Amino acid sequence: MNRELIEITDPYDERIAPYRDIRERDLVGRQGLFIAEGRVVLNVLFSTSRFRAQSLFLRDNRVQGARDLLERVPADIPVYVAGGEIMDEIAGFNIHRGIIAVGERCSSQTAEELLDSLPENALVVALSAIANHDNMGAIFRNAAAFGADAVLLDSDCCDPLYRKAIRVSVGAALKVPFAQAGKAQEMTALLHARGFDVLAMTPQGERDVSEVSLGPRTALLLGAEGPGLDSGLLEQWPTVKISMREDFDSLNVATASAIALHHIWLKR
Amino acid sequence: MNRELIEITDPYDERIAPYRDIRERDLVGRQGLFIAEGRVVLNVLFSTSRFRAQSLFLRDNRVQGARDLLERVPADIPVYVAGGEIMDEIAGFNIHRGIIAVGERCSSQTAEELLDSLPENALVVALSAIANHDNMGAIFRNAAAFGADAVLLDSDCCDPLYRKAIRVSVGAALKVPFAQAGKAQEMTALLHARGFDVLAMTPQGERDVSEVSLGPRTALLLGAEGPGLDSGLLEQWPTVKISMREDFDSLNVATASAIALHHIWLKR
Repeated sequence: MNRELIEITDPYDERIAPYRDIRERDLVGRQGLFIAEGRVVLNVLFSTSRFRAQSLFLRDNRVQGARDLLERVPADIPVYVAGGEIMDEIAGFNIHRGIIAVGERCSSQTAEELLDSLPENALVVALSAIANHDNMGAIFRNAAAFGADAVLLDSDCCDPLYRKAIRVSVGAALKVPFAQAGKAQEMTALLHARGFDVLAMTPQGERDVSEVSLGPRTALLLGAEGPGLDSGLLEQWPTVKISMREDFDSLNVATASAIALHHIWLKR
Repeated sequence: MNRELIEITDPYDERIAPYRDIRERDLVGRQGLFIAEGRVVLNVLFSTSRFRAQSLFLRDNRVQGARDLLERVPADIPVYVAGGEIMDEIAGFNIHRGIIAVGERCSSQTAEELLDSLPENALVVALSAIANHDNMGAIFRNAAAFGADAVLLDSDCCDPLYRKAIRVSVGAALKVPFAQAGKAQEMTALLHARGFDVLAMTPQGERDVSEVSLGPRTALLLGAEGPGLDSGLLEQWPTVKISMREDFDSLNVATASAIALHHIWLKR
């Protein structure tokens, strides 16, 4: 392996500043950057990702195991290496995965631009008020598994490029195109205007998701667990449910997305 | 409300000893007891649970909001109350839910006894090497939602009554009967002997789970994400998959359980 590795011995080295105090930065934000961790996610970042990496940072004992990955890293992306203690001191906690990258958010596409770029028979997952990063990551994972073309987020959703959301998505948050689309009402109106049949998921839906017949373009609309979708949205759009025992309250929202997306996958 | 509340003012009061250092005890075990937290889970514990509570512990500012719950608590179960600071000192961290109970594991049923207690047309979820408590809890939640009659666990599975597993299951771990069933080979042999068609889930399955025709008794067999089911098991039993994009590795195991269980629910 003749890849140049830049050894870091000073935890205050300015070159690795974006890796400093990772958890604190999760809370305050990263101004156009994001953190991706672990081999599976980084394989996505350096292959099918929509985003560009800024640098890669490896624990010294992970260099051997990361050979395949390093072959994919463009020559102009610096690769930093440090011992475990220094790496943990920089990050502010024990980075047991030992393999981490900083990526750059691209200049964000509008929801209109994103929808205009999609094929005739597109499938979109539209999210309203999904505020939990685990759920956000899991929904992206499911969207990727079942071939959704894009995810739209209303203004009450959390960030799919938050560190934990990327991790839970096993990299799908870097791959499936997404865009912010204002309030939920605006988002669904836009989808409708672009020829999408909006299907609003709710435990009180009119039909089971297995019984839906699909038009050319489908948008699956999901709201937060607990409150669910706003009643205005449920009045405006056809509703679908996942049939289940009547004495059971409801499923996790990411789980519901997977069940619905698999049924849609089988019909497309 | 005339329910007697026992005020705790001394964090070293022996009556609340099972609530002490909750996280440390998560690791070392609780000798026949378990911890259940939050209103939704405690509603299950005091209604449809298979297990008996030993006591209930409320933060003083939660007493009003817990009225409905308190009406369900049997008269011989002590209800302790403390201020937030004392409660947090006892528990060893910030109990923001402020409502928590200790339950008693019943003398455990064998897998044979459990299977013998099930109806003719039973559905069982059989788990091999599910070692992650989030996944375990989520699988129980899905099993409850789609009417599984029982869960069998092989000897490599983690404990469904671990605190986090109960929480993620939203109480389903207290409700859906489960039993340990030895090694995975023994578990599946037992299911077969009791008339169950074993369906082994794997990304390389022969048929999509939507295409399966069900016999009277079905056992859905799931293994850990990553390694998946042991190849011996996959050779021995019919396999089913969840169709998805070919370039995507696989789903989370709990998500896979939900998709399969919903298809089975629609066919039963």
